Parts: sequence; C-alpha cells; structure tokens
Amino acid sequence: MDPLHDASRRHFASDNYAGAHPEVITALAAANGGHTVSYGEDPYTARLQRQFVELLGEGVEAFPVFNGTGANVVGLQAMLTRWGAVITPAVAHIHTDEGGAPEKVGGFKIVPVHTPDAKLTPDLIRSVAGSRGVHQAVPQVVSITQSTELGTLYSVDEIAAIADTAHALGLTLHMDGARIANAAAALGVPLREFTRDAGVDVLSFGGTKNGAIGAEAIVVLNPDAVTGIDFLRKSAMQLASKMRFVSAQLVALLTDDLWLRSGAHANAMAARLRAGIEAGLADGSITRVSFTQPTQTNGVFAILPPGVADRLREDFRFYDWNEATGEVRWLTSWDTTEADVDAFIAAIAAATSATP
Amino acid sequence: MDPLHDASRRHFASDNYAGAHPEVITALAAANGGHTVSYGEDPYTARLQRQFVELLGEGVEAFPVFNGTGANVVGLQAMLTRWGAVITPAVAHIHTDEGGAPEKVGGFKIVPVHTPDAKLTPDLIRSVAGSRGVHQAVPQVVSITQSTELGTLYSVDEIAAIADTAHALGLTLHMDGARIANAAAALGVPLREFTRDAGVDVLSFGGTKNGAIGAEAIVVLNPDAVTGIDFLRKSAMQLASKMRFVSAQLVALLTDDLWLRSGAHANAMAARLRAGIEAGLADGSITRVSFTQPTQTNGVFAILPPGVADRLREDFRFYDWNEATGEVRWLTSWDTTEADVDAFIAAIAAATSATP
Amino acid sequence: MDPLHDASRRHFASDNYAGAHPEVITALAAANGGHTVSYGEDPYTARLQRQFVELLGEGVEAFPVFNGTGANVVGLQAMLTRWGAVITPAVAHIHTDEGGAPEKVGGFKIVPVHTPDAKLTPDLIRSVAGSRGVHQAVPQVVSITQSTELGTLYSVDEIAAIADTAHALGLTLHMDGARIANAAAALGVPLREFTRDAGVDVLSFGGTKNGAIGAEAIVVLNPDAVTGIDFLRKSAMQLASKMRFVSAQLVALLTDDLWLRSGAHANAMAARLRAGIEAGLADGSITRVSFTQPTQTNGVFAILPPGVADRLREDFRFYDWNEATGEVRWLTSWDTTEADVDAFIAAIAAATSATP
Amino acid sequence: MDPLHDASRRHFASDNYAGAHPEVITALAAANGGHTVSYGEDPYTARLQRQFVELLGEGVEAFPVFNGTGANVVGLQAMLTRWGAVITPAVAHIHTDEGGAPEKVGGFKIVPVHTPDAKLTPDLIRSVAGSRGVHQAVPQVVSITQSTELGTLYSVDEIAAIADTAHALGLTLHMDGARIANAAAALGVPLREFTRDAGVDVLSFGGTKNGAIGAEAIVVLNPDAVTGIDFLRKSAMQLASKMRFVSAQLVALLTDDLWLRSGAHANAMAARLRAGIEAGLADGSITRVSFTQPTQTNGVFAILPPGVADRLREDFRFYDWNEATGEVRWLTSWDTTEADVDAFIAAIAAATSATP
Repeated sequence: MDPLHDASRRHFASDNYAGAHPEVITALAAANGGHTVSYGEDPYTARLQRQFVELLGEGVEAFPVFNGTGANVVGLQAMLTRWGAVITPAVAHIHTDEGGAPEKVGGFKIVPVHTPDAKLTPDLIRSVAGSRGVHQAVPQVVSITQSTELGTLYSVDEIAAIADTAHALGLTLHMDGARIANAAAALGVPLREFTRDAGVDVLSFGGTKNGAIGAEAIVVLNPDAVTGIDFLRKSAMQLASKMRFVSAQLVALLTDDLWLRSGAHANAMAARLRAGIEAGLADGSITRVSFTQPTQTNGVFAILPPGVADRLREDFRFYDWNEATGEVRWLTSWDTTEADVDAFIAAIAAATSATP
Repeated sequence: MDPLHDASRRHFASDNYAGAHPEVITALAAANGGHTVSYGEDPYTARLQRQFVELLGEGVEAFPVFNGTGANVVGLQAMLTRWGAVITPAVAHIHTDEGGAPEKVGGFKIVPVHTPDAKLTPDLIRSVAGSRGVHQAVPQVVSITQSTELGTLYSVDEIAAIADTAHALGLTLHMDGARIANAAAALGVPLREFTRDAGVDVLSFGGTKNGAIGAEAIVVLNPDAVTGIDFLRKSAMQLASKMRFVSAQLVALLTDDLWLRSGAHANAMAARLRAGIEAGLADGSITRVSFTQPTQTNGVFAILPPGVADRLREDFRFYDWNEATGEVRWLTSWDTTEADVDAFIAAIAAATSATP
Repeated sequence: MDPLHDASRRHFASDNYAGAHPEVITALAAANGGHTVSYGEDPYTARLQRQFVELLGEGVEAFPVFNGTGANVVGLQAMLTRWGAVITPAVAHIHTDEGGAPEKVGGFKIVPVHTPDAKLTPDLIRSVAGSRGVHQAVPQVVSITQSTELGTLYSVDEIAAIADTAHALGLTLHMDGARIANAAAALGVPLREFTRDAGVDVLSFGGTKNGAIGAEAIVVLNPDAVTGIDFLRKSAMQLASKMRFVSAQLVALLTDDLWLRSGAHANAMAARLRAGIEAGLADGSITRVSFTQPTQTNGVFAILPPGVADRLREDFRFYDWNEATGEVRWLTSWDTTEADVDAFIAAIAAATSATP
Repeated sequence: MDPLHDASRRHFASDNYAGAHPEVITALAAANGGHTVSYGEDPYTARLQRQFVELLGEGVEAFPVFNGTGANVVGLQAMLTRWGAVITPAVAHIHTDEGGAPEKVGGFKIVPVHTPDAKLTPDLIRSVAGSRGVHQAVPQVVSITQSTELGTLYSVDEIAAIADTAHALGLTLHMDGARIANAAAALGVPLREFTRDAGVDVLSFGGTKNGAIGAEAIVVLNPDAVTGIDFLRKSAMQLASKMRFVSAQLVALLTDDLWLRSGAHANAMAARLRAGIEAGLADGSITRVSFTQPTQTNGVFAILPPGVADRLREDFRFYDWNEATGEVRWLTSWDTTEADVDAFIAAIAAATSATP
C-alpha cells in the first residue's frame, strides 16, 4: 500500500494528528509472526508488566487498553461503587471529550469543578466532597489530568496535597495521564515520584498521543483502590484479542525512555513556539497576540486578533479553544520539528502584520 | 525491539493467536508519518469507505472500530430502541463471549435460541419474535454469525429467508462477520450477494481474526436500519483518535482481495485437517475420533478419546469446547501452513495410537 | 370522589386486577396525619422491620419498594458485581415480564434455563453455572420464584437443595416472592422455614398481589450477600419519599397474619376452581378441558377447546398463556369468592357445551 | 392498625414530611373493590387523562408514575437520544438529589449551570448549549424546576423566553414540577399558560409533595418531543400494576382544584412565616435573622445566628441548607396551620433572644 497523505506535513492541531514513532512500527513487526496466546497471556504484555514494575515499583499492575477514554472509564469504574461520583475539573477530558462514556458506560456521575487553570486544589475538592447519604451520588474518586487539558502542570507537592486531601476524605485519586510523558519530562522527576509516591491510586498511562498508533494502559498503583478491573475491561469492550500488538507499542515507548524523550521533545517545541512569539512581540514583528495559560508542557494557548486565525489556517491546522474570546490552542507533538515551529512563528508574524 | 516469542510456531487454538499479515504491517508503515486529521477525517478512512462501496454498492457506510465486541454492540445498539431485544443463537458470540457487554454497555436484552448447528431458521425466529407490549423487551433485531461459532455456514438462500422473515416481522437483520472472510471464501460468491442483496441490514466486518492486528468495521448496508451510530461509537469508547491506523489495516485487507485469499487459505487448511483425519480413520492410523459439525469454513469440531487431548497439548494449543463430551475445537488461520496441518494430523495419529 | 368502576365484579385474569384489602386502606388512614420523617425514618417502617424480625429472625433487614420489578432488580443488583449474571428459569418474571429492566437498570445478564414446570433443580443450575473468566458474564446468583409463574411450588427440601447447590458453587440464592403468601399458605410451614432456614439469601416479599395497593419489600436474609442496597434502591428510583405509606401497607398485611390468610384464601379458590372443573369433566358437564400444570397455589393452567376462551370472555377476563396450544391462565386472588368460582365453572360448562 | 405517630405534630422540614390530604385517602377507598385491568387500562387512569386534557388542552398525555425521580428520569430519557445531555441549574433536584439516577438509569449526562437563584436564563442556556459533534454528550434538553429548589418562581415570560431559546437551539424544554401547585398558585394564572402555552414540552406534575401518598405524572405537552415513554416507564420500573391507585390520588388532587388550593395554602403559610419574622425583626423581638432568597412559594431560606438552629430544633425539625453560612431551609406544606407558623415564629423569637 502506498501512502495516501503527505507524510512531510505537520500541524499544531493535536498530538493525535501525529503518526507513530518508527520504533513503534518496528515493535509491531517484531511482535508479529507465529502464534501467541490471545487476550493478554503473551510475552509482550508480560514484558510491559515488568517495565511498569521497574518504573513504579513492585505491586503495580498494568492493563493495556485501546484508547484514553477506555483507560479512564474502566479505571474509574473499578475505583467506584455503583453509587459513586468523580470530582474533576470542569475542563477535564472525562467531562468534556468522552462523549458521555463515563455516564453511559461507566454509569457514574461527574462532579465538575470550575477552575481557572484546569487544576484542582485541596480546597476545591473539600468544597464538593461532602455526601448526603443516599440522595446524591457519593463522591468517591478525585480525578486529575497530568499534564492538564490547558497544558498546565501539577507539581509533585500539589499532587501529594491533593492525594492527602482525597485520602483523608475517604476518596481515592485517579490521574488521567493521556499526556503523562509531557508531564514527566516537564517535572524532571521519576514517574514514580509524582504518581505512586505522591499518592495516586490509579493512572491512565497514555501512549497514543506520545507516538503509539493506539495504546494506553490502566496502571493500578494501589491494588486496594480497585475491584474487578479485568472483568470491567472486558465488559467495557477494551480487551484486545491480539493484545501483543497493543502491549508491544507500549513496550517500545518504555524501552530506553522513548516515551520520556518524546515528551521532552514536544515540550521543547512548545517552549520554542512560545519563546518565538514572545520575541516577536518584543521586537514588534508579531502584534496583539496574548497568552492565556503558562506553557508548561506541549500546549500554547493564545488569543489572536480578529482575522489572524483564518489567515494562519491557510497553511496550518489548529483548533479554536474559545470562539467568544478568540482563544486558540496550539499543540506540539513528538514529531514536531524546529523548522515546523519556526515556519509557524513566521506565519504568525506575517498574519498579524497583514491583519490590521 | 527484538521478538520475545517464537515466530515460527503456530497452533490450532484460535485465529486470534495468529499475528498480522505482512501487508498489514506494511500498510501501517505507509500510513505513518506526517499529520492527518484525527477521529476519521483522514485519507485512509476515506479509502476504506470507497472500498466498501466498491464491494457492497453505493450507500453503504463503514465505521471502523477496535474489536469485534465493539462492532457488534455499537452496531446492534444503533439498530435498537432503548427497549429492544436481539434474537440470536444461544452459542452466539454476543451471548457467550462478550462479557455481558451487550447488556452492560448496549443496555439491550438478548433472546438466546437453542440450535444444533449455531444457525437460526425462519421458524426459530418466529417462535420467539412475538411482543407483549411494554412488559417484555421487544425483539427488534435478529443477529446471525457468518460463518458461525461452530464453523458452519449459512447459504445465500438461508440468509435471504431469514432476512425476509425478520423484515416481515418488522425486525432488522444483523450479521456478526468476525469470520466473514472465511464465509465469503466458502460460499464462493461476492460479499454483496450474501449480505446486502440477501437482506442483511448491518454487518460487523471482521479484520482481526483475518490478519489485522486489531480492526473491525461496522458496515451499514441499510441506512434506515440505524440511528446515531457515530455518536454511539464514540460513547461506547470505540472511536480511535488516530483512526488512520485502524482504517489502514482494513484497507490492506481489502486491497487485491487479501481478505478473501486469507479466508480461503484458512478454510483450505481446515479442510486439509479434516481430510487428513478422515483418511487416518479410514486407514486405521487414527482411531476413535469423531466429528460434531461439518467443516464448512476454518473450524474442526471433534470428540477425542480420553487422554488424547492432553497428549496433543504437549505440543499444540487448542481449546475444549465441551468438557463433558470430550469435544474440542480446532481452528486454522490465515497463516496456518500445510506443514502445520500435517504435523498436527501426525500428532493426532500418534496420540490416538498411544492412548488405549 | 365516587367509584368509576363496578366494585362488585371480579375476574380470573390476574391478582393485580384485585384491589386492596380493606385493612390496607385502614392502615393508610391510620398512618396519615401530622408529619413524619421522610425516606424511611418513620415509625411504620420501623414497625415493619420489627415484624420481619419476628417472622424471620434477628439480623434480617427489610427495604420497602414500590413494585415487584423494583424489588427484584434492586435486590439482585445488590447481590451481583458489575460483571455478574443471574441463573433463572426461562419463564421467570425477571426474564419475561420486567421490560428488560434487569439488563437496562440492573446492568446484569440473565441466563435463562428451560424447565417444564418453572422450577430449577440442582442439576439445571450446575449445567449453566460454569464461568469462563472474563469472557462471559459470571453466574453469581440463582433466582427462583416461589410460588412460580406457573403456579407450581418448591418444597422446603427442593429449596434447600438449590441453596446448597448454589452456595457450593459460590453463588447466592434470590427468591422472587411476588406470591410468597400463596406459597407460604400452600406449604403450611413458617415463612422462615422455606426461606432463611432453607438458605435463601435475599427475598422479594410481595405485597401488591396480596392485597396492597402497591408495596413490596426486599428482605435481606443474609447480610453478607448484599452490598449497598440502600444506595441502589435510591438510584433505581425505588425509594419512596413518604415511605410511611408504603410500609403501612405491609404492616397491615403482616398484622394478624393477614398476608397468610389472604394467600390461603386465594389458593382455596383456585383449588375450588380446579375441583369444580374436574368434577365437570367427570360428570360430562364440562368437556375437552385439560390441565397443563398442577394447581398448587392460586393458578389454574388449562387448555381449552377452540372457541371456548372467546365465549368465556364475554363475561370473564383472563389471559392466554400459549396461543399456539390454546393454553390459558386463570388466577384467583385474595378477594375471589366462592360464588365467583362457581359462576366461572358454570360458564366453562356452558361454553364447552355450546362449542362443538 | 392504630397510628404509631403523633398525627397532630407538624414541622418545617419538608413537604414530604406531610401526610396525604383526606380527599386522597377517600379516593383510594373509592377506587378500591372489584377488579380493574392492571397497568393503566382502568377508569381512574382514563379519568386522570381527561382531567389533564381539560387543564392543558387536547393532545396532552399523562403517564402516572411512583415518584418525582421516576417522573423526571423517564420523561427526560424519552426526550433524549442515547447521546444526549440535559442543561439544568446546579441546584436542580435531578443533579443533586436523585442519587445519580439520571446517569445510572437514564444514561444521560447533566450539564449543571451555576445560578444565584436556581433559575436558568436564555444567556446561561446559550453559554453551554453548544455541541462539538460526537466528542461531547450533546445538549438536547433544558430542564427547569417550577417552583425552584430555592422557592423561587419563573414568571410566564421567563419560561417563554427559555422555551424560545431552547427551541431556537434545537433543544426541548422539560419542567420538573414537583411543586407545580405552589408555582401555579403563586403565579395566579392557569397551569396551561406557564407550561404548554409557554413552550414547555414535557412536565413532571408533582402530587406527592402536594398531598398524595405517592403519585406523580409525566405529562407530555408536545408529543413530538418524546419517544417510547410507555416502554421507558416500564423498563425504568415505574409502571404500577395496580395503577388505579396511583391515578386515583392524582384524580383527587385535580378534582375541584384541590391541588391548587393546597398549593396556595402552603404558599400563604410561608408568606405568613416570612412576614412574621420580618415583623419580629422590625420590632426587635427577633434579631440577626436574614433571608437569602425571596419567598415566592412555600420556602423560606434564612441565615440564623450561631446556636439558634440547635435551639429551634428542640421543638421543630428542619434542614440545614448551607452549614458553612448557617443557612437553613423552612418549608411549609398543604397541612401547615396558622398556629404552626405562629408557634414557630414565637420559637424563633425566643431562640434569638436566648442566644447571645
């Protein structure tokens, strides 16, 4: 089969627009051939399990799934009784981008909390964690996204404080790590330090946005926090028959820190983009662009003057974040190049110059 | 990454044990690189759509998903109101092997019908299709598996008769085609003839068991039979973000009839296995093995004398079908070789000889 | 408000056609007036709880609900994990008459077992109780109906054998007691003997069919068999705000054995009906009527010659049970009179005489 | 049965603490006796249907159910596709007091909107009504509560503006009328004027809080707005077998405007309470009590000085609304007397005097 697309063209729309890291394709080929037991009893899934133990310590257990929504919903369902609810920021992916799967498949209620920066705090959690007996779905889990949907980052201490708060209230802590690699690279500390050791109970470890073709893992850091996750994965239709191919992707990412290097690269590209625009603003080559969030990982959130987004889109794809304010979201990914970034900065300069 | 398994070793346990056809891996690599729009607006998904139109005619629409359970549950849910039920044989995969996902995710009831050969008939359908108003979940869909879980095959006429019966009763017809390639090859007629033209409304087109790493498509043959399938695919967590990689696998299978050639090969290997055993029974080299189903596609269902299965399993993996009777299931796949079959026949001969 | 119906007319269609026992209306009036705490913290619910303890022993707990489907689904859900399934006869109310609520609200799968007399046996249970890990919803509960949907009755020993079988398999035992009063009266033993002491874990105690306007109770006989029933009752929308009025109905039924006397009366009327028809068959005044089930409680199942049902329905309402065979179901209730029965027998005689 | 409670004692905790209006008990007795067809084909349900047509015009259809949660969830589910969401104030009963039933039974997502007075506005609706295709549960229904959970009231014009906004956006409008009688009495206009004529599509008509023992009706004002409500009522376990007794309660309320008179009385008692406290504040007999909401129907929301609530509770039951601020909720009901109110005012005066 020949390519049907321009394999040299990249955008700033989403890390889901990016393809797979070549190592991932290589891993798929290596895992191919012959017969292996289906549904997870294969050596690639076993290897993945060992890799997670190396990263996160004895006792953790990984459950590969197809996508991030699957990881979140199955992981959360395993943490909740049938009458439970999940506290999360109002911009959380589970609340805004999963098509209602948490409610419809997971059967659980989400308690969304408004935050300026997509980050919960102990005070915000306490403000909504109360239970009124049977009359209200009972908050049982706090879910945070690291790095967040706004490209912001929880510090290790912030996570630990959230975990302590949750646990003190009798709740457990879930981390949506769809961009865990970007977070790990930005924090510069071992994965374990800001997850398991900080008190996270269950982690959705993201591979897809980080160079897989489609592979995530529910990583149970605290076995006491979950029930029946293997059954729930199956009944939620997230159990791969030829699981070796899901696992092999994640094995490739975890080998020689590929996941971390890719995350660091994406972050560096976002930083380069931010710095380039800021330099343009300083020297006047770019005008009237402002930022709405700090660029702590691989996202740049900016407000553009009227007309600029349309002009930029003649060459680059990206998404509006808030049409009312003109806010846009630019994401970099593992494959974004310096040349891509520089061309985009130049385009921004040209567009703001050309737009009165 | 190096292989962790013996890529030269094959079994008779499941077509899910097999790996991916090399063309599928090639297609993944070809689809890689650069950025494409996520969630299905990519050229590989568009190509796949055109391929299905070529196979099945104008007006059909394909929705790639991760796995067969996903294809079945999403497709069926789109065919049903919230108060609907599905009539299907008691051995149907949706009833016995999907972890309750039809009920738990799809929210629908299954009306299982006992059959000797995994095949529904118009009479069987009529016997359970009645509705008693609001008191009972209303049968709205008939689901048949082609080829069946017992390796049997519906003829074109049988499918047409079932479709006519279903439609006359106001029901629609779903086909679980996890092994549609084996069926198409066995029937020797165009796919369209025994699906759309025979009156099937929605088809789960299986890729995984036929050489994909994990890819299926819900193919809507009759758009009037479904509602909201794109929304349901998302909320059922079966919408791939990097969909190009799911679609590319299916594109590879549909290119140059790879799917059909692979299905035919697997069938031929099952026929070879059956013929070899029958020859052994005839010449006395194999004893006391009997068959419980005709071998119409890629499965051989046999009853073994006591002890024989255990001895065979020293070298080959396969599954018990009915422990009470000693029935076992042997499946061939796209990659089964003549040598594999011959070695297995020899092993059966040796095992029956060695077991008194 | 004046009556809108003929309060002197009764039929043989359903014990749900009957009204409320006058004691139940009296109880509603007695429970009225003033304010009591809502949602169950009222003295009528407390009294009910004490009554059940008197009947069934220390440690049982009763949860009043609105209707039988609510009692069954909430009780069963509390007995099951999210991946569980329920083994029950194919004619069980939960399988055929609850509109799919078990699947749709309870989220659980039903494993229907074909039986001639609506009664499970240890062998039937063992034949379907096996689990295949995550691939199939796991049988966790056996549900029997006492008395059954066919008017038949489990003996104490039969229940004990089923309970022993279920428990030995790691399952628990649920009893749908929509007609528990008829069963208790027919068995002639204390309620406790054929429920708790026989090994039943959870009982749906029916009031509606036995003279309430609408009241049932989930009675937990074995607290270890359930989880979160109070939460599940609420989220299943079966928690009455003014619960005193649900509880008061049941209190009235349990006072001075009204429930048992009413059940015995209904049974006696069914026996009279059966005996009258049999006498008619013996003396030739009734012809060509046969019975399909023993009349052990308040139901008579009969096959009528063609045309007879239509003629009978000129004066009496009742339901077809099997249109193909001409089988009908006649139910008596707490308010059926001897005169009602005798008139019906006479009508049957007239109808069979008039129909060639 | 003798009363088990003090029928002369009333509180200010909830209109669910109140009993049934004597006319309701009379109606139950009138509807009793003889046999009527079950599940809604009885003359009381027919009468109820005619009463609603008289109130609301030809074409409306009423579906009696057990409780308010049932009315809301079934009505909303009938208005939504499987991928729909409901926009509602964050204090709405469906969001805060139904135990997650909307999500767990209805399978739909709630989009809660923060409001100071429990009332949506066109602007608030527009701010959250946008859809992003399959990625987010699609807002399809706006649900408002009339009168609201804070005792406030939508004017006819406000409802019409909301309906116009909803309809212009392609959404439909649901009204939770658990306290519709209080609203109708307060507005002083015919029910039809602020429901059907204002553009409400489906109404939960509340009876329980207004003197029934337990009866509500889903009233479909716009048949085009719903699908399958009879099936959904059954599968949601809200279909009463002896429905005559649910319907008869509502018939009694709708006869001779009993519902409206009871609502007006409750409102008058709340107004008396408010006026009495305000008079006390003016003359100094009551101190340091402030109000957080206008008293437009049957609720008074007040902030009490520390210690006062505890002292008051020695004699009267009522609920905290916001423990952090000392806010309490006082509700009057159809049976609250002037003497009850005056005694409570006196108790407030005594408690504020006694508490420094």
